[in-house]
Amino acid sequence: MSPQPARRNERSRRAILAAALELLAESGYADLTIEAIASRAGVGKPTIYRWWRGKGAIILDAVVETFPDVVELPDTGDLRADLRAVIRATVAEFADPTLSATTRALTIETLADDDLAGQVRDRLLRPQLDAVRARLESARAAGRVRPDAPLEQVVELLFGPIYHRWLLRTGPLTEPYADALVDLVMAAIEPAGG
Amino acid sequence: MSPQPARRNERSRRAILAAALELLAESGYADLTIEAIASRAGVGKPTIYRWWRGKGAIILDAVVETFPDVVELPDTGDLRADLRAVIRATVAEFADPTLSATTRALTIETLADDDLAGQVRDRLLRPQLDAVRARLESARAAGRVRPDAPLEQVVELLFGPIYHRWLLRTGPLTEPYADALVDLVMAAIEPAGG
Repeated sequence: MSPQPARRNERSRRAILAAALELLAESGYADLTIEAIASRAGVGKPTIYRWWRGKGAIILDAVVETFPDVVELPDTGDLRADLRAVIRATVAEFADPTLSATTRALTIETLADDDLAGQVRDRLLRPQLDAVRARLESARAAGRVRPDAPLEQVVELLFGPIYHRWLLRTGPLTEPYADALVDLVMAAIEPAGG
Repeated sequence: MSPQPARRNERSRRAILAAALELLAESGYADLTIEAIASRAGVGKPTIYRWWRGKGAIILDAVVETFPDVVELPDTGDLRADLRAVIRATVAEFADPTLSATTRALTIETLADDDLAGQVRDRLLRPQLDAVRARLESARAAGRVRPDAPLEQVVELLFGPIYHRWLLRTGPLTEPYADALVDLVMAAIEPAGG
């Protein structure tokens, strides 16, 4: 392919992803249509269907590209402080109306479509979960985490409650909430007498 | 209304709820239609729309009526044993394909419809969350739980990770998994030196 069409394709692709996120924030996932995305992006519907099989796949690509390096977990040597940083940031994402709308859309697709569920997990969430797990491993090596703590489950103990509260709207998603969650998880994994 | 039509209405209502659960288990939520439910239940579509505004509301009523007294939490005096019983049962529900399909359907509706979300939370989940919270309170009164443990968040610490694992399919939903989860939460809430 000559440089010219490649550049045009890339421009269209970015316009489509941006249009999808804009429309999602404006009017929600239920009302999001391929037609509206095409119109906002200034492309034809066939262009979209050439690259994606549905709106869920578009939103996933848009989110992955918009937040590519979101998972730099700090390692200050203070596990509680490092977990507070990442859990505060995660809680803030769920509390943000725009980001919450994209998470809502992807969760609906995750529930309805096994293939997309695997992609959401592996491309979007797995890097973050693995970064937290790696930080827990380094803390365990430093003697700050019980040797027998099941780290995969500890990661879920951090993120699962946020998801639960967001989904069921059972309480506020605030910084004090985030810190209390980290304190609970720290109490669960600290060595006895630590 | 004379007894005769009342009985006929009740028979139709039950047939509709049963048909909805059957069809959901057979072919999934995406393919579930009001038309199919009406046909299976032997009623007209207008009958259904007179009583419910959509398939999500039907599934919610069906689940609430099918599992009415699901939340008898034991109080044996042994908090760990009592939590194991309820968390093993919850994990088994999420692992069961039929129950998982109804939870999937209700979760999709919860994400798309604020009003139904409130009903799912208050009619279906709140009784269970409150029963666990009451058990934690009695344990705290007996000195088995740290006085400063935030019990609302402890309840989410128990259920959130199950939801997370089920949604993202990141690991098996088994009895050893359930027990390890309870052990983590117990470590988080037990008094120092307890």
